[in-house]
Amino acid sequence: MAPIILNCMGNDHNDYIKQLVQVKNPNLDTMEEDILYHFSLGTKTHNLPEMFGDIKFACVGGSANRMKAFAQFIHKELELPGNPEEIIDICEGTDRYCMYKVGPVLSISHGMGVPSISIMLHELIKLLHHAQCRDVVLFRLGTSGGVGLAPGTVVVTDKAVDYSFRAQFEQVVLGKVITRSTELDEGVANELLQCSSELQNFPTVIGNTMCTHDFYEGQGRLDGALCSFSHEEKLEYLRKAYDAGVRNIEMESTVFAAMCRVCGLKAAVVCVALLNRFDGDQITSSHDVLVEYQQRPQVLVSHFIKKRLGLIV
Amino acid sequence: MAPIILNCMGNDHNDYIKQLVQVKNPNLDTMEEDILYHFSLGTKTHNLPEMFGDIKFACVGGSANRMKAFAQFIHKELELPGNPEEIIDICEGTDRYCMYKVGPVLSISHGMGVPSISIMLHELIKLLHHAQCRDVVLFRLGTSGGVGLAPGTVVVTDKAVDYSFRAQFEQVVLGKVITRSTELDEGVANELLQCSSELQNFPTVIGNTMCTHDFYEGQGRLDGALCSFSHEEKLEYLRKAYDAGVRNIEMESTVFAAMCRVCGLKAAVVCVALLNRFDGDQITSSHDVLVEYQQRPQVLVSHFIKKRLGLIV
Repeated sequence: MAPIILNCMGNDHNDYIKQLVQVKNPNLDTMEEDILYHFSLGTKTHNLPEMFGDIKFACVGGSANRMKAFAQFIHKELELPGNPEEIIDICEGTDRYCMYKVGPVLSISHGMGVPSISIMLHELIKLLHHAQCRDVVLFRLGTSGGVGLAPGTVVVTDKAVDYSFRAQFEQVVLGKVITRSTELDEGVANELLQCSSELQNFPTVIGNTMCTHDFYEGQGRLDGALCSFSHEEKLEYLRKAYDAGVRNIEMESTVFAAMCRVCGLKAAVVCVALLNRFDGDQITSSHDVLVEYQQRPQVLVSHFIKKRLGLIV
Repeated sequence: MAPIILNCMGNDHNDYIKQLVQVKNPNLDTMEEDILYHFSLGTKTHNLPEMFGDIKFACVGGSANRMKAFAQFIHKELELPGNPEEIIDICEGTDRYCMYKVGPVLSISHGMGVPSISIMLHELIKLLHHAQCRDVVLFRLGTSGGVGLAPGTVVVTDKAVDYSFRAQFEQVVLGKVITRSTELDEGVANELLQCSSELQNFPTVIGNTMCTHDFYEGQGRLDGALCSFSHEEKLEYLRKAYDAGVRNIEMESTVFAAMCRVCGLKAAVVCVALLNRFDGDQITSSHDVLVEYQQRPQVLVSHFIKKRLGLIV
């Protein structure tokens, strides 16, 4: 019996079926073909089970360059054969997203904001479903503004909250607003925190992550093209956020948490804080410092993956 | 007196000042430096008036490849010197957006969805302001799903409307929801329609454009990872949209219209319909057909620009 099956077998057949990645759409199984348009992949044009059937970790992040760098990094960390520099973008037929596969790890970019990551997640979950993947953990690796944290601190999200600090995501379905829970997997979050303690000089906290729909007015920045509030009003809003347990602000976590939860996927959000928003709005650190900060979520998730694969005891 | 000044002078000094691109943020003029982080540009590191002062048309679209192709196309159309293949990405320091300058035309990608284009617009409007640009027209050139239109039809947006067909955009500012009008410039829209009539076999309509925050559930698609409604319920929603004057659906127009309006910028949205949503959800046309469709907004806006520049009488 192959290790991959052993790894995933539960106590009985039902557990085994349960671990398959589920979609929540009865129409999909009756479709003759499913074109994953924004990946430039499809069920008729690609053998998805063969291409992706062994995926156990799907890692997503905003920037295409950063997710390519992560794929190359995890390639080295897992000591896989082949040249990490020669890694190929599976979605090269489109420029909407990029996607790299490194052993059991998928690394995908999602652009900025809830709508952009939502398109990617619909097609990723369908891809994992069509490929008959089992027992997959999803990670969002991102950058964020810190709330009362030193720049460079890594935040593992407890609850993803909206602009009113509620752990919910509002989704419009056929013109009606419905609300979905944004709770993430507590076990994975604690496992990540444990991983951070095993790394040297790795400031990490678990806290709430506020997800906004823009970078300027919604996050209380004073430096956008539009700004109608004072410095004091900004600080008051950030203080309220801090009191509600918010430790960082980004733009994708609520829909990521909500969609993974609906589909029964274990998921975590790991973002580094590039600045402390109590101290300012502009990101003024040098390029080299920012590059090092952006590697931190990658290092943490890589450590997690290596432990799960038994490469670190 | 240089032609560029002549071109822009109103009846008196006040008109001249009015034509300058305005920001709605008193803080900006007191900042020592403004870093346009997602463009990798800044007021201290770049001479923005020298680089961008002559911009008269800012064209934005989702895909980086498409906006590069548009820059190369408009380079040929305006018969400018130099090799269009050697065009340089001004934002090469970042992979968030790409930006090309071709004479008085700026071509910029904005990714997918309201949050992504909103970040770009904040920084574009600041850029045009810092560069002391005057009398600039903004265009969004996009792709969309048609509502009761044949694939390939170009829609010039009358009103950008939300999921309830209201011509408004809800913006969260410090945790409070405010509403902004999404009316676009009627004159520019009519001028574009006139341009379309001067082109051969160029099916074009003026209609309302619905802007949603996702591609699947919000647009009534039956083929997402999540779907809780029937084919009949989908059609009912699309019929309501059609009755409200909606002719296409995309994901950026409301915030584009709202921000341009607040800053007094003339703006238009020109999107091609890739499919008729009454007939299906998946985009099944061949690559070549889709490429030709995507060129149509470019051809129309290019015609408009050439007329405005007096290159076509």
